[in-house]
Amino acid sequence: MTLSPLQPASFSKYDSHQPLIGILGAGQLGRMLALAGIPLGLRFRFLDPEANSPAAQLAPCITGSYEDEKTLEAFADGLDAVTYEFENVPAKAVETLSRRLPVYPSQLALETSQDRLKEKTLFQKLDIETPFFAPVSNRSNLNAALEISGFPAVLKTRRFGYDGKGQWLLRNSQDADFCWEQIEKTSQSREISLILEGFIPFDSEVSLIAARNLRGQTVFYPLFQNRHEGGVLRLSKLGAPGVSKELQNRAETATRSILDALNYTGVLALEFFLVGDRLIANEMAPRVHNSGHGTIEGASASQFENHLRAILDYPLAAPNLNGVSAMWNVLGETPDIAGVLATPSAHLHLYGKTPRPGRKIGHITVLAETEEALAEPLAVIRKLAPQT
Amino acid sequence: MTLSPLQPASFSKYDSHQPLIGILGAGQLGRMLALAGIPLGLRFRFLDPEANSPAAQLAPCITGSYEDEKTLEAFADGLDAVTYEFENVPAKAVETLSRRLPVYPSQLALETSQDRLKEKTLFQKLDIETPFFAPVSNRSNLNAALEISGFPAVLKTRRFGYDGKGQWLLRNSQDADFCWEQIEKTSQSREISLILEGFIPFDSEVSLIAARNLRGQTVFYPLFQNRHEGGVLRLSKLGAPGVSKELQNRAETATRSILDALNYTGVLALEFFLVGDRLIANEMAPRVHNSGHGTIEGASASQFENHLRAILDYPLAAPNLNGVSAMWNVLGETPDIAGVLATPSAHLHLYGKTPRPGRKIGHITVLAETEEALAEPLAVIRKLAPQT
Repeated sequence: MTLSPLQPASFSKYDSHQPLIGILGAGQLGRMLALAGIPLGLRFRFLDPEANSPAAQLAPCITGSYEDEKTLEAFADGLDAVTYEFENVPAKAVETLSRRLPVYPSQLALETSQDRLKEKTLFQKLDIETPFFAPVSNRSNLNAALEISGFPAVLKTRRFGYDGKGQWLLRNSQDADFCWEQIEKTSQSREISLILEGFIPFDSEVSLIAARNLRGQTVFYPLFQNRHEGGVLRLSKLGAPGVSKELQNRAETATRSILDALNYTGVLALEFFLVGDRLIANEMAPRVHNSGHGTIEGASASQFENHLRAILDYPLAAPNLNGVSAMWNVLGETPDIAGVLATPSAHLHLYGKTPRPGRKIGHITVLAETEEALAEPLAVIRKLAPQT
Repeated sequence: MTLSPLQPASFSKYDSHQPLIGILGAGQLGRMLALAGIPLGLRFRFLDPEANSPAAQLAPCITGSYEDEKTLEAFADGLDAVTYEFENVPAKAVETLSRRLPVYPSQLALETSQDRLKEKTLFQKLDIETPFFAPVSNRSNLNAALEISGFPAVLKTRRFGYDGKGQWLLRNSQDADFCWEQIEKTSQSREISLILEGFIPFDSEVSLIAARNLRGQTVFYPLFQNRHEGGVLRLSKLGAPGVSKELQNRAETATRSILDALNYTGVLALEFFLVGDRLIANEMAPRVHNSGHGTIEGASASQFENHLRAILDYPLAAPNLNGVSAMWNVLGETPDIAGVLATPSAHLHLYGKTPRPGRKIGHITVLAETEEALAEPLAVIRKLAPQT
């Protein structure tokens, strides 16, 4: 008797011609990528600084630093391609891996998404409407930028912000003074690298998810209608009325121009504010996106499958919708599982994470023929999986 | 840097309250069970005599004998429940495990399915129409049975036959003589344990898949319309016309009587011959079934998910259909992957098996609104994945 921990431990390049994909980051996005790719005959290896990550439950995972050369070497050995599940992976790691292996999305795409200033500069260059923005590295920059933006405005870190972290809403000059004091205190001798953005009093938020493969074939999902609470995505609807064909077309045109400008490979998510019928680009993510989790059941092919098809240069799947769907994030604590499973049309996804307040530990997707028919199961799900 | 082969290596009973399910057999059925269960927050451990089995790519797998006490002990340690992916697992293993752990389906269900004589005797007792049958352990049994059945008739091993293996079609007394000679030669001193069955000149074959949970909640999928070639399942359609409500009801009544008689827990598949509108029970399988693989995309909840819900006593999912679907087995060699992925509505499932002639290495499911609309993608798929 021998305990085989996992078959691809040999890290051979091909085993029965099964491509071996390396993924930086072993969180829930990596986990759902593997769940989508295993049926296609793919194999996965993860790298994550944290042990016991969600994806480590179904594929070999190297626990180590993205910045350690030896770790990257062990990770890369025998891989066919590399991708990543989040945009805060050090660009240096992608640069190192890119010298050995195909890495998608490219380093250029990653670096653009990692820096709000580069990202918004690209939007501007491509004539994609985006809030007023200006780089801020000292108090006089901030004052000059506030002169133009007026109040309220939003001061953000250029890098490493997510889920509303690293953002300050400035409602008046007192806010600006107080905030700047805090920033100077905490930054100490480090360079201050911020961006001031005009505040958009938006009506709603939508996101567009696109996939583009190596040879340039591109598919778009219909716009997701999102609701955030406390800076964290709570609910995304797919296929609900409220997205006109014209709006969809404009979102696709903007996204396509980014894909082409970056010669992009993989899934890209673009978040927009909607003000009346104005689409204002907020930010992009060079990866599968939380708002798109409902594509697992809500569309004929998920964002996860299309991302893998894209980086392997397989034909992409045109996503047809299965009616209207709503994805509800499970935050904080394990929901009433039997209750969720007893709810008609509800699909449970748990990430294998230890529950703790506010943590994204799963999501639930409900499907219906119409948006009206979604209301009832969604109300049930909200009660069974309240935010904690 | 440490290489974490797989998280549940500690074999702790609960890790963040994730039930740990043991599965005997790590083939494609086990693999698809794990793919369905991981999103529900479940964890898996497999036991299989063969190394490098399909399920070993996504969960820890113990390579060892089902008949070795120490292996069974290591396998059982810390599990919450045990199930199996095929009915030829030694009943002794299930008996041993049942003393320590809940094992579903039960030993009674397993033993009944393992022996064609017990199985058909149960059908008869429950007034479920089945072909004429008689046990055969010597030549005079065979002659007596043939007197009643007439020719043609089918002589089968009572145990361990699958995919048409261990079956002889007897068209006349010369066939019977020749066959008996072979059997005596190969059986040597072992006991002969056969069953003679009347030959059913059936019009078509259908199967019913049901799931029953611990508290007795039961759901049925619509009948699958199956086509076998060379004793191996080739094509299963779900949701196509040709299954009347009345036929479905009769199949459900028969299956429900078996589920109740065995106080069954898990998924059960019942295969029928259809002669005119007569449903004649052929055999049952105490497990997820090849004809039901199309439920992954063709129904709102797959047979794999419902099997896991059943054995954990979760509420079952009523399976609504996504139009009409057809599942095509991939036999022998890897299909043209890019071609399959370029076929609209086609969903590829590869099992990570080394291709060899006749071997089931994957399946492809195509979906459409109507059976007519299925014809085109199905024709494409047949060409891309011919039998070899």
